[in-house]
Amino acid sequence: MHKIEHLGIAVKNLEESNILFAKLLGTEHYKIEEVASEGVRTSFFKSGPNKVELLEATNADSPIAKFLEKKGEGIHHIAFAVDDIVAEISRLKGEGFKVLNEIPKKGADNKLVAFLHPKGTNDVLVELCQEIKEG
Amino acid sequence: MHKIEHLGIAVKNLEESNILFAKLLGTEHYKIEEVASEGVRTSFFKSGPNKVELLEATNADSPIAKFLEKKGEGIHHIAFAVDDIVAEISRLKGEGFKVLNEIPKKGADNKLVAFLHPKGTNDVLVELCQEIKEG
Repeated sequence: MHKIEHLGIAVKNLEESNILFAKLLGTEHYKIEEVASEGVRTSFFKSGPNKVELLEATNADSPIAKFLEKKGEGIHHIAFAVDDIVAEISRLKGEGFKVLNEIPKKGADNKLVAFLHPKGTNDVLVELCQEIKEG
Repeated sequence: MHKIEHLGIAVKNLEESNILFAKLLGTEHYKIEEVASEGVRTSFFKSGPNKVELLEATNADSPIAKFLEKKGEGIHHIAFAVDDIVAEISRLKGEGFKVLNEIPKKGADNKLVAFLHPKGTNDVLVELCQEIKEG
């Protein structure tokens, strides 16, 4: 894990929050991307070497809809950049962490991702992200 | 705001969580610091250009004790690095954000800090951090 790749924030209304976070961060979002398989629409902001991802639910079964219902808006997960997600999953399993996606899946923003079970990480939902290389 | 300076995580037991996060991040914490005025004991881990701060309450009136009681362990705040915290507070006030510390205060890890009211930021507790220069 070589840096915080992004911070994921669950919001009720992506358009309103895009305006708010543009004011907060002093920069506009650089993309909006829907991940249909996850039931989310996301927007991304740059903050130097890091990003902020806003997540809005697109259906009632979305993990973000459930999070909003249970906890309300706020920080949903923290993602760390890794160079080799398969090796990192293996390392973390060896350290006793429960990996929710033993086979990494395609996430937003051109990434292979895997999540760790928050019960093993002080209730922090941790995502691993590996950039998908072209070609 | 030019990067995520650190992610703050509220934990019940700093020693146990230090062991856990060393395994997670693949690196030991580089310091432990008590901020008596805030009722917290903190540890810091490096993750490339970013840090992870673990926060343990040192008394029942600590904001971290109240957070743990209300929400349990988990992500407590996100801190962004700024070059000029006074100018940034002024800019954010002008954008309509409610700044909880109009005069920045001394925080952990040699920083001047100020927090924004989470009701104006989708329930995300945002901290601004400016490195205190020597001399």
